[in-house]
Amino acid sequence: MTEPLWQAQILTLYPEMFPGPLGHSLAGKALDQGLWRLDVSQIRDHAHDKHHTVDDTPAGGGPGMVMRADVLGEAVDAALADRPKDIREEDWPLVYLSPRGRVLDQELVQEFAGKKGITLLCGRFEGIDERVLEARNIMEVSLGDFVLSGGEVAALALMDAVVRLIPGVIGQPDTLAEESFEAGLLEYPHYTRPRVWEGREIPEVLQSGHHGRIKAWRQEQSERLTRERRPDLWKEYLHRSGKNDMDPAEDD
Amino acid sequence: MTEPLWQAQILTLYPEMFPGPLGHSLAGKALDQGLWRLDVSQIRDHAHDKHHTVDDTPAGGGPGMVMRADVLGEAVDAALADRPKDIREEDWPLVYLSPRGRVLDQELVQEFAGKKGITLLCGRFEGIDERVLEARNIMEVSLGDFVLSGGEVAALALMDAVVRLIPGVIGQPDTLAEESFEAGLLEYPHYTRPRVWEGREIPEVLQSGHHGRIKAWRQEQSERLTRERRPDLWKEYLHRSGKNDMDPAEDD
Repeated sequence: MTEPLWQAQILTLYPEMFPGPLGHSLAGKALDQGLWRLDVSQIRDHAHDKHHTVDDTPAGGGPGMVMRADVLGEAVDAALADRPKDIREEDWPLVYLSPRGRVLDQELVQEFAGKKGITLLCGRFEGIDERVLEARNIMEVSLGDFVLSGGEVAALALMDAVVRLIPGVIGQPDTLAEESFEAGLLEYPHYTRPRVWEGREIPEVLQSGHHGRIKAWRQEQSERLTRERRPDLWKEYLHRSGKNDMDPAEDD
Repeated sequence: MTEPLWQAQILTLYPEMFPGPLGHSLAGKALDQGLWRLDVSQIRDHAHDKHHTVDDTPAGGGPGMVMRADVLGEAVDAALADRPKDIREEDWPLVYLSPRGRVLDQELVQEFAGKKGITLLCGRFEGIDERVLEARNIMEVSLGDFVLSGGEVAALALMDAVVRLIPGVIGQPDTLAEESFEAGLLEYPHYTRPRVWEGREIPEVLQSGHHGRIKAWRQEQSERLTRERRPDLWKEYLHRSGKNDMDPAEDD
Protein backbone atom coordinates (compact mmCIF):
# COMPACT_ATOMS: atom_id res chain seq x y z
CA MET A 1 0.00 0.00 0.00
CA THR A 2 1.30 3.43 -0.96
CA GLU A 3 0.60 6.44 1.22
CA PRO A 4 -2.88 7.74 0.30
CA LEU A 5 -2.74 10.87 -1.87
CA TRP A 6 -6.02 12.22 -0.50
CA GLN A 7 -8.18 11.38 2.50
CA ALA A 8 -11.81 12.00 3.35
CA GLN A 9 -13.37 11.94 6.81
CA ILE A 10 -17.14 11.64 6.92
CA LEU A 11 -19.29 12.54 9.92
CA THR A 12 -22.75 11.04 9.51
CA LEU A 13 -25.69 9.36 11.21
CA TYR A 14 -25.63 6.77 8.37
CA PRO A 15 -22.12 5.28 8.14
CA GLU A 16 -23.62 2.33 6.25
CA MET A 17 -24.11 4.62 3.22
CA PHE A 18 -20.32 4.72 2.65
CA PRO A 19 -18.41 3.98 0.49
CA GLY A 20 -21.65 2.96 -1.32
CA PRO A 21 -21.25 3.73 -5.04
CA LEU A 22 -17.63 4.81 -4.43
CA GLY A 23 -16.78 1.21 -3.53
CA HIS A 24 -17.11 0.29 -7.23
CA SER A 25 -15.61 1.27 -10.58
CA LEU A 26 -12.85 3.92 -10.73
CA ALA A 27 -13.20 5.27 -7.19
CA GLY A 28 -13.52 1.77 -5.72
CA LYS A 29 -10.42 0.49 -7.49
CA ALA A 30 -8.47 3.55 -6.34
CA LEU A 31 -9.71 2.99 -2.77
CA ASP A 32 -8.53 -0.64 -2.90
CA GLN A 33 -5.17 0.51 -4.29
CA GLY A 34 -4.76 2.96 -1.42
CA LEU A 35 -4.71 6.03 -3.72
CA TRP A 36 -7.27 7.63 -1.41
CA ARG A 37 -8.64 6.78 1.99
CA LEU A 38 -12.10 7.05 3.53
CA ASP A 39 -12.80 7.25 7.29
CA VAL A 40 -16.42 7.28 8.38
CA SER A 41 -17.54 8.27 11.91
CA GLN A 42 -20.93 7.88 13.53
CA ILE A 43 -22.01 11.24 14.97
CA ARG A 44 -24.27 9.43 17.44
CA ASP A 45 -21.19 8.07 19.27
CA HIS A 46 -20.73 11.61 20.59
CA ALA A 47 -24.13 11.81 22.27
CA HIS A 48 -23.77 11.10 25.97
CA ASP A 49 -27.32 10.69 27.28
CA LYS A 50 -28.67 7.19 27.61
CA HIS A 51 -30.83 7.50 24.47
CA HIS A 52 -27.89 8.79 22.38
CA THR A 53 -29.91 11.83 21.38
CA VAL A 54 -28.40 13.88 18.57
CA ASP A 55 -31.25 16.31 17.88
CA ASP A 56 -33.84 18.46 19.61
CA THR A 57 -36.74 20.77 18.68
CA PRO A 58 -35.89 24.11 17.01
CA ALA A 59 -35.52 27.12 19.32
CA GLY A 60 -38.36 29.51 18.49
CA GLY A 61 -40.58 26.67 17.26
CA GLY A 62 -41.28 25.28 13.82
CA PRO A 63 -41.33 21.86 12.17
CA GLY A 64 -38.61 19.23 12.25
CA MET A 65 -35.59 18.67 14.46
CA VAL A 66 -32.20 20.36 14.68
CA MET A 67 -28.88 18.59 15.30
CA ARG A 68 -27.28 19.66 18.59
CA ALA A 69 -24.16 21.86 18.72
CA ASP A 70 -22.64 19.98 21.66
CA VAL A 71 -22.83 16.58 19.95
CA LEU A 72 -21.62 17.92 16.59
CA GLY A 73 -18.86 20.01 18.19
CA GLU A 74 -17.46 16.91 19.86
CA ALA A 75 -17.77 14.84 16.68
CA VAL A 76 -15.91 17.51 14.68
CA ASP A 77 -13.18 17.82 17.31
CA ALA A 78 -12.65 14.05 17.32
CA ALA A 79 -12.29 14.07 13.52
CA LEU A 80 -9.83 16.97 13.61
CA ALA A 81 -7.75 15.18 16.25
CA ASP A 82 -7.74 12.11 14.02
CA ARG A 83 -6.12 13.82 11.02
CA PRO A 84 -2.47 13.11 10.22
CA LYS A 85 -0.02 14.87 12.56
CA ASP A 86 1.25 18.36 11.68
CA ILE A 87 -1.47 18.93 9.11
CA ARG A 88 -2.07 22.64 8.44
CA GLU A 89 -5.65 23.89 8.56
CA GLU A 90 -5.44 25.25 5.00
CA ASP A 91 -4.46 21.81 3.70
CA TRP A 92 -7.58 20.10 5.04
CA PRO A 93 -10.93 21.87 4.53
CA LEU A 94 -13.72 21.33 7.04
CA VAL A 95 -17.01 21.34 5.14
CA TYR A 96 -20.71 21.18 5.99
CA LEU A 97 -22.86 20.14 3.05
CA SER A 98 -25.82 22.47 2.93
CA PRO A 99 -28.03 24.18 0.33
CA ARG A 100 -26.96 27.50 1.89
CA GLY A 101 -23.32 26.95 0.93
CA ARG A 102 -21.04 27.94 -1.92
CA VAL A 103 -22.27 26.02 -4.95
CA LEU A 104 -19.87 23.22 -5.93
CA ASP A 105 -18.22 23.68 -9.30
CA GLN A 106 -15.19 22.23 -11.07
CA GLU A 107 -12.96 25.02 -9.77
CA LEU A 108 -13.80 24.13 -6.16
CA VAL A 109 -13.45 20.41 -6.94
CA GLN A 110 -9.93 21.09 -8.24
CA GLU A 111 -9.12 23.14 -5.17
CA PHE A 112 -10.22 20.26 -2.91
CA ALA A 113 -8.24 17.76 -5.02
CA GLY A 114 -5.11 19.81 -4.32
CA LYS A 115 -5.46 19.41 -0.54
CA LYS A 116 -4.27 16.57 1.70
CA GLY A 117 -7.80 15.67 2.69
CA ILE A 118 -11.23 16.91 3.68
CA THR A 119 -13.67 16.53 6.56
CA LEU A 120 -17.30 16.37 5.45
CA LEU A 121 -20.09 16.92 7.96
CA CYS A 122 -23.41 15.46 6.78
CA GLY A 123 -26.54 16.97 8.32
CA ARG A 124 -30.00 15.47 8.58
CA PHE A 125 -33.44 16.72 9.69
CA GLU A 126 -34.09 20.47 9.43
CA GLY A 127 -30.40 21.29 9.77
CA ILE A 128 -27.72 21.79 12.40
CA ASP A 129 -27.26 24.30 15.22
CA GLU A 130 -25.71 27.43 13.71
CA ARG A 131 -23.26 27.86 16.60
CA VAL A 132 -21.19 24.84 15.60
CA LEU A 133 -20.65 26.36 12.14
CA GLU A 134 -19.43 29.61 13.73
CA ALA A 135 -17.39 28.09 16.56
CA ARG A 136 -15.50 25.65 14.32
CA ASN A 137 -15.26 27.98 11.31
CA ILE A 138 -16.91 25.44 9.01
CA MET A 139 -17.19 26.12 5.28
CA GLU A 140 -20.63 25.48 3.77
CA VAL A 141 -20.76 23.83 0.34
CA SER A 142 -23.91 23.14 -1.67
CA LEU A 143 -24.36 20.51 -4.36
CA GLY A 144 -26.94 22.73 -6.07
CA ASP A 145 -30.23 24.53 -5.65
CA PHE A 146 -32.24 21.52 -4.58
CA VAL A 147 -32.93 19.80 -1.27
CA LEU A 148 -31.61 16.35 -0.39
CA SER A 149 -32.72 14.20 2.53
CA GLY A 150 -29.26 14.69 4.07
CA GLY A 151 -25.68 15.56 3.27
CA GLU A 152 -24.61 11.99 2.55
CA VAL A 153 -25.43 11.83 -1.17
CA ALA A 154 -23.86 15.28 -1.62
CA ALA A 155 -20.70 14.01 0.11
CA LEU A 156 -20.61 11.03 -2.27
CA ALA A 157 -20.91 13.31 -5.31
CA LEU A 158 -18.22 15.67 -4.03
CA MET A 159 -15.82 12.79 -3.34
CA ASP A 160 -16.52 11.17 -6.71
CA ALA A 161 -15.65 14.43 -8.48
CA VAL A 162 -12.45 14.89 -6.45
CA VAL A 163 -11.21 11.28 -6.53
CA ARG A 164 -11.15 11.12 -10.35
CA LEU A 165 -8.66 14.01 -10.32
CA ILE A 166 -6.20 12.17 -8.04
CA PRO A 167 -3.12 11.18 -10.06
CA GLY A 168 -3.31 7.54 -11.14
CA VAL A 169 -7.08 7.15 -10.77
CA ILE A 170 -7.90 7.76 -14.43
CA GLY A 171 -5.76 5.74 -16.84
CA GLN A 172 -5.62 8.43 -19.53
CA PRO A 173 -4.94 11.80 -17.89
CA ASP A 174 -5.48 13.60 -21.22
CA THR A 175 -9.20 12.90 -20.90
CA LEU A 176 -9.17 15.37 -17.99
CA ALA A 177 -7.90 18.23 -20.12
CA GLU A 178 -10.58 17.97 -22.81
CA GLU A 179 -13.66 17.66 -20.67
CA SER A 180 -16.54 19.92 -19.72
CA PHE A 181 -15.76 23.16 -17.88
CA GLU A 182 -12.00 22.90 -18.31
CA ALA A 183 -12.20 25.57 -21.00
CA GLY A 184 -15.38 27.09 -19.58
CA LEU A 185 -17.45 25.46 -22.33
CA LEU A 186 -19.79 22.48 -22.51
CA GLU A 187 -18.44 19.40 -24.22
CA TYR A 188 -18.86 18.84 -27.96
CA PRO A 189 -20.93 15.84 -29.22
CA HIS A 190 -19.31 12.42 -29.31
CA TYR A 191 -19.75 9.69 -31.91
CA THR A 192 -18.39 6.19 -32.36
CA ARG A 193 -18.99 3.14 -34.52
CA PRO A 194 -21.25 2.09 -36.22
CA ARG A 195 -20.81 4.75 -38.92
CA VAL A 196 -24.51 4.62 -39.73
CA TRP A 197 -27.10 3.80 -37.07
CA GLU A 198 -30.84 3.92 -37.74
CA GLY A 199 -30.11 5.97 -40.85
CA ARG A 200 -28.09 8.53 -38.88
CA GLU A 201 -24.50 8.97 -40.03
CA ILE A 202 -21.51 10.23 -38.06
CA PRO A 203 -20.82 13.85 -39.22
CA GLU A 204 -18.65 13.80 -42.31
CA VAL A 205 -15.94 16.03 -40.84
CA LEU A 206 -15.20 13.45 -38.11
CA GLN A 207 -14.58 10.85 -40.82
CA SER A 208 -12.28 13.15 -42.79
CA GLY A 209 -9.09 12.41 -40.85
CA HIS A 210 -8.31 16.14 -41.11
CA HIS A 211 -7.19 17.06 -37.58
CA GLY A 212 -7.43 20.80 -38.07
CA ARG A 213 -10.99 20.67 -39.37
CA ILE A 214 -12.03 18.22 -36.62
CA LYS A 215 -10.61 20.47 -33.93
CA ALA A 216 -12.34 23.53 -35.37
CA TRP A 217 -15.67 21.67 -35.66
CA ARG A 218 -15.50 20.50 -32.04
CA GLN A 219 -14.70 24.01 -30.81
CA GLU A 220 -17.60 25.38 -32.84
CA GLN A 221 -19.97 22.75 -31.42
CA SER A 222 -18.85 23.44 -27.84
CA GLU A 223 -19.44 27.14 -28.36
CA ARG A 224 -22.84 26.58 -29.97
CA LEU A 225 -24.04 24.25 -27.18
CA THR A 226 -22.83 26.61 -24.45
CA ARG A 227 -24.45 29.62 -26.13
CA GLU A 228 -27.77 27.81 -26.60
CA ARG A 229 -28.00 25.96 -23.30
CA ARG A 230 -26.06 28.01 -20.78
CA PRO A 231 -26.11 31.75 -21.48
CA ASP A 232 -24.54 32.24 -18.01
CA LEU A 233 -21.43 30.17 -18.85
CA TRP A 234 -21.30 31.68 -22.33
CA LYS A 235 -21.20 35.21 -20.96
CA GLU A 236 -18.37 34.27 -18.58
CA TYR A 237 -16.48 32.57 -21.41
CA LEU A 238 -16.72 35.63 -23.64
CA HIS A 239 -15.64 37.80 -20.74
CA ARG A 240 -12.61 35.65 -19.93
CA SER A 241 -11.52 35.22 -23.52
CA GLY A 242 -11.63 38.98 -24.01
CA LYS A 243 -14.50 38.80 -26.47
CA ASN A 244 -16.91 40.80 -24.35
CA ASP A 245 -16.59 43.71 -26.76
CA MET A 246 -18.96 41.69 -28.94
CA ASP A 247 -21.63 42.97 -26.58
CA PRO A 248 -23.90 39.91 -26.62
CA ALA A 249 -27.61 40.56 -26.11
CA GLU A 250 -28.69 40.25 -22.48
CA ASP A 251 -30.62 37.03 -22.02
CA ASP A 252 -32.67 38.11 -19.08
CA MET B 1 -47.73 -3.47 -0.67
CA THR B 2 -49.48 -0.40 -1.99
CA GLU B 3 -49.08 0.61 -5.66
CA PRO B 4 -45.82 2.61 -5.92
CA LEU B 5 -46.41 6.36 -6.23
CA TRP B 6 -43.27 6.89 -8.28
CA GLN B 7 -40.88 4.61 -10.15
CA ALA B 8 -37.33 4.98 -11.34
CA GLN B 9 -35.63 2.92 -14.04
CA ILE B 10 -31.84 3.06 -14.10
CA LEU B 11 -29.69 2.08 -17.08
CA THR B 12 -26.11 1.63 -15.96
CA LEU B 13 -22.92 -0.38 -16.32
CA TYR B 14 -22.79 -0.56 -12.49
CA PRO B 15 -26.10 -1.97 -11.21
CA GLU B 16 -24.34 -2.82 -7.92
CA MET B 17 -24.26 0.91 -7.08
CA PHE B 18 -28.06 0.87 -6.55
CA PRO B 19 -29.94 1.47 -4.32
CA GLY B 20 -26.69 2.22 -2.43
CA PRO B 21 -27.34 5.13 -0.04
CA LEU B 22 -31.02 5.14 -1.02
CA GLY B 23 -31.42 1.73 0.60
CA HIS B 24 -31.14 3.40 4.02
CA SER B 25 -32.89 6.09 6.03
CA LEU B 26 -35.96 7.88 4.59
CA ALA B 27 -35.59 6.70 0.98
CA GLY B 28 -34.78 3.15 2.08
CA LYS B 29 -37.81 2.91 4.37
CA ALA B 30 -40.03 4.31 1.62
CA LEU B 31 -38.59 1.76 -0.82
CA ASP B 32 -39.35 -1.08 1.63
CA GLN B 33 -42.87 0.27 2.11
CA GLY B 34 -43.44 0.29 -1.64
CA LEU B 35 -43.95 4.07 -1.81
CA TRP B 36 -41.53 4.13 -4.72
CA ARG B 37 -39.91 1.47 -6.86
CA LEU B 38 -36.46 1.11 -8.37
CA ASP B 39 -35.61 -1.05 -11.40
CA VAL B 40 -31.99 -1.28 -12.41
CA SER B 41 -30.83 -2.64 -15.80
CA GLN B 42 -27.38 -3.58 -16.97
CA ILE B 43 -26.63 -1.78 -20.25
CA ARG B 44 -24.08 -4.47 -21.11
CA ASP B 45 -26.89 -7.02 -21.51
CA HIS B 46 -27.71 -5.23 -24.75
CA ALA B 47 -24.29 -5.73 -26.33
CA HIS B 48 -24.40 -8.67 -28.71
CA ASP B 49 -20.79 -9.38 -29.65
CA LYS B 50 -19.00 -12.11 -27.72
CA HIS B 51 -17.03 -9.61 -25.59
CA HIS B 52 -20.21 -7.66 -24.67
CA THR B 53 -18.60 -4.46 -25.91
CA VAL B 54 -20.48 -1.28 -24.98
CA ASP B 55 -17.96 1.34 -26.12
CA ASP B 56 -15.58 2.19 -28.92
CA THR B 57 -13.02 4.88 -29.81
CA PRO B 58 -14.32 8.38 -30.62
CA ALA B 59 -14.95 9.19 -34.28
CA GLY B 60 -12.43 11.85 -35.28
CA GLY B 61 -9.95 10.76 -32.62
CA GLY B 62 -9.26 11.94 -29.10
CA PRO B 63 -8.86 10.37 -25.67
CA GLY B 64 -11.26 8.01 -23.93
CA MET B 65 -14.07 5.83 -25.16
CA VAL B 66 -17.64 6.57 -26.26
CA MET B 67 -20.69 4.43 -25.46
CA ARG B 68 -22.26 2.98 -28.63
CA ALA B 69 -25.60 4.20 -29.98
CA ASP B 70 -26.77 0.73 -30.99
CA VAL B 71 -26.25 -0.77 -27.51
CA LEU B 72 -27.75 2.25 -25.73
CA GLY B 73 -30.65 2.49 -28.16
CA GLU B 74 -31.62 -1.10 -27.44
CA ALA B 75 -31.20 -0.62 -23.66
CA VAL B 76 -33.44 2.46 -23.75
CA ASP B 77 -36.08 0.71 -25.86
CA ALA B 78 -36.15 -2.24 -23.45
CA ALA B 79 -36.67 0.16 -20.51
CA LEU B 80 -39.45 2.01 -22.33
CA ALA B 81 -41.19 -1.27 -23.14
CA ASP B 82 -40.94 -2.20 -19.47
CA ARG B 83 -42.86 0.83 -18.17
CA PRO B 84 -46.44 0.35 -16.96
CA LYS B 85 -48.99 -0.08 -19.76
CA ASP B 86 -50.68 2.98 -21.25
CA ILE B 87 -48.18 5.39 -19.74
CA ARG B 88 -48.05 8.71 -21.61
CA GLU B 89 -44.64 10.01 -22.65
CA GLU B 90 -45.16 13.29 -20.77
CA ASP B 91 -45.76 11.37 -17.53
CA TRP B 92 -42.41 9.57 -17.62
CA PRO B 93 -39.33 11.65 -18.49
CA LEU B 94 -36.39 9.98 -20.20
CA VAL B 95 -33.21 11.58 -18.88
CA TYR B 96 -29.49 11.36 -19.59
CA LEU B 97 -27.35 12.70 -16.75
CA SER B 98 -24.70 14.91 -18.27
CA PRO B 99 -22.82 18.12 -17.45
CA ARG B 100 -24.22 19.53 -20.71
CA GLY B 101 -27.79 19.29 -19.47
CA ARG B 102 -30.30 21.59 -17.80
CA VAL B 103 -28.98 22.20 -14.30
CA LEU B 104 -31.06 20.39 -11.67
CA ASP B 105 -32.90 22.71 -9.28
CA GLN B 106 -35.80 22.35 -6.88
CA GLU B 107 -38.30 23.40 -9.55
CA LEU B 108 -37.20 20.52 -11.80
CA VAL B 109 -37.14 18.13 -8.82
CA GLN B 110 -40.77 19.05 -8.10
CA GLU B 111 -41.68 18.58 -11.74
CA PHE B 112 -40.15 15.08 -11.70
CA ALA B 113 -41.90 14.26 -8.42
CA GLY B 114 -45.24 15.02 -10.10
CA LYS B 115 -44.67 12.36 -12.78
CA LYS B 116 -45.43 8.62 -12.64
CA GLY B 117 -41.78 7.72 -13.00
CA ILE B 118 -38.49 8.45 -14.69
CA THR B 119 -35.89 6.62 -16.78
CA LEU B 120 -32.31 7.63 -15.98
CA LEU B 121 -29.51 6.79 -18.38
CA CYS B 122 -26.09 6.82 -16.68
CA GLY B 123 -23.10 7.36 -18.95
CA ARG B 124 -19.47 6.45 -18.35
CA PHE B 125 -16.17 7.11 -20.15
CA GLU B 126 -16.01 10.22 -22.37
CA GLY B 127 -19.74 10.18 -22.97
CA ILE B 128 -22.34 8.59 -25.22
CA ASP B 129 -22.98 8.66 -28.95
CA GLU B 130 -24.95 11.82 -29.73
CA ARG B 131 -27.28 10.03 -32.11
CA VAL B 132 -29.03 8.10 -29.33
CA LEU B 133 -29.91 11.40 -27.61
CA GLU B 134 -31.42 12.72 -30.85
CA ALA B 135 -33.14 9.52 -31.99
CA ARG B 136 -34.83 8.85 -28.64
CA ASN B 137 -35.48 12.51 -27.77
CA ILE B 138 -33.64 12.22 -24.45
CA MET B 139 -33.60 15.17 -22.01
CA GLU B 140 -30.16 16.04 -20.61
CA VAL B 141 -29.99 16.98 -16.92
CA SER B 142 -26.87 18.11 -15.07
CA LEU B 143 -26.23 17.87 -11.35
CA GLY B 144 -24.01 20.96 -11.53
CA ASP B 145 -20.94 22.46 -13.15
CA PHE B 146 -18.54 19.71 -12.15
CA VAL B 147 -17.50 16.38 -13.65
CA LEU B 148 -18.37 13.03 -12.08
CA SER B 149 -16.88 9.66 -13.00
CA GLY B 150 -20.30 8.65 -14.34
CA GLY B 151 -23.99 9.41 -14.15
CA GLU B 152 -24.67 7.00 -11.27
CA VAL B 153 -23.99 9.35 -8.34
CA ALA B 154 -25.98 12.07 -10.11
CA ALA B 155 -28.89 9.63 -10.51
CA LEU B 156 -28.73 8.86 -6.78
CA ALA B 157 -28.83 12.57 -5.90
CA LEU B 158 -31.73 13.23 -8.27
CA MET B 159 -33.73 10.32 -6.87
CA ASP B 160 -32.99 11.31 -3.26
CA ALA B 161 -34.31 14.81 -3.94
CA VAL B 162 -37.46 13.49 -5.66
CA VAL B 163 -38.26 10.65 -3.26
CA ARG B 164 -38.46 12.94 -0.21
CA LEU B 165 -41.28 14.83 -1.95
CA ILE B 166 -43.40 11.68 -2.44
CA PRO B 167 -46.42 11.86 -0.12
CA GLY B 168 -45.84 9.81 3.03
CA VAL B 169 -42.03 9.69 2.81
CA ILE B 170 -41.45 12.58 5.22
CA GLY B 171 -43.45 12.33 8.43
CA GLN B 172 -44.03 16.06 8.82
CA PRO B 173 -45.03 17.50 5.43
CA ASP B 174 -44.85 21.06 6.85
CA THR B 175 -41.06 20.76 6.88
CA LEU B 176 -41.26 20.78 3.08
CA ALA B 177 -42.95 24.18 2.95
CA GLU B 178 -40.38 26.00 5.08
CA GLU B 179 -37.21 24.78 3.48
CA SER B 180 -34.58 26.24 1.20
CA PHE B 181 -35.65 27.46 -2.25
CA GLU B 182 -39.40 27.09 -1.58
CA ALA B 183 -39.60 30.86 -1.19
CA GLY B 184 -36.57 31.49 -3.39
CA LEU B 185 -34.43 32.25 -0.33
CA LEU B 186 -31.75 30.36 1.59
CA GLU B 187 -32.81 28.94 4.92
CA TYR B 188 -32.49 30.94 8.16
CA PRO B 189 -30.13 29.71 10.93
CA HIS B 190 -31.34 26.95 13.26
CA TYR B 191 -30.71 26.57 16.98
CA THR B 192 -31.66 24.03 19.61
CA ARG B 193 -30.79 23.15 23.20
CA PRO B 194 -28.52 23.71 25.06
CA ARG B 195 -29.38 27.41 25.46
CA VAL B 196 -25.71 28.25 26.02
CA TRP B 197 -22.94 26.24 24.36
CA GLU B 198 -19.26 27.21 24.65
CA GLY B 199 -20.38 30.66 25.80
CA ARG B 200 -22.61 31.13 22.74
CA GLU B 201 -26.27 31.76 23.50
CA ILE B 202 -29.29 31.10 21.29
CA PRO B 203 -30.45 34.52 19.91
CA GLU B 204 -32.76 36.18 22.42
CA VAL B 205 -35.62 36.63 19.98
CA LEU B 206 -35.92 32.84 19.55
CA GLN B 207 -36.36 32.50 23.30
CA SER B 208 -39.00 35.23 23.45
CA GLY B 209 -42.00 33.07 22.58
CA HIS B 210 -43.21 35.97 20.44
CA HIS B 211 -44.27 34.30 17.20
CA GLY B 212 -44.50 37.49 15.18
CA ARG B 213 -41.00 38.63 16.12
CA ILE B 214 -39.57 35.14 15.51
CA LYS B 215 -41.14 34.99 12.06
CA ALA B 216 -39.84 38.45 11.18
CA TRP B 217 -36.34 37.61 12.44
CA ARG B 218 -36.20 34.41 10.40
CA GLN B 219 -37.36 36.20 7.25
CA GLU B 220 -34.73 38.89 7.81
CA GLN B 221 -32.00 36.25 8.30
CA SER B 222 -33.04 34.37 5.16
CA GLU B 223 -32.93 37.59 3.18
CA ARG B 224 -29.55 38.59 4.62
CA LEU B 225 -27.97 35.19 3.90
CA THR B 226 -29.33 35.12 0.35
CA ARG B 227 -28.14 38.68 -0.34
CA GLU B 228 -24.65 37.97 1.04
CA ARG B 229 -24.07 34.51 -0.36
CA ARG B 230 -26.13 34.24 -3.53
CA PRO B 231 -26.54 37.54 -5.36
CA ASP B 232 -28.00 35.52 -8.27
CA LEU B 233 -30.88 34.11 -6.19
CA TRP B 234 -31.35 37.47 -4.45
CA LYS B 235 -31.80 39.27 -7.74
CA GLU B 236 -34.40 36.71 -8.85
CA TYR B 237 -36.18 36.97 -5.52
CA LEU B 238 -36.41 40.77 -5.75
CA HIS B 239 -37.61 40.44 -9.29
CA ARG B 240 -40.32 37.92 -8.45
CA SER B 241 -41.51 39.77 -5.34
CA GLY B 242 -41.81 42.95 -7.36
CA LYS B 243 -39.05 44.71 -5.44
CA ASN B 244 -36.75 45.14 -8.41
CA ASP B 245 -37.42 48.88 -8.39
CA MET B 246 -34.96 48.95 -5.47
CA ASP B 247 -32.29 48.76 -8.18
CA PRO B 248 -29.71 46.71 -6.29
CA ALA B 249 -26.07 47.36 -7.18
CA GLU B 250 -24.69 44.94 -9.78
CA ASP B 251 -22.43 42.43 -8.08
CA ASP B 252 -20.34 41.56 -11.06
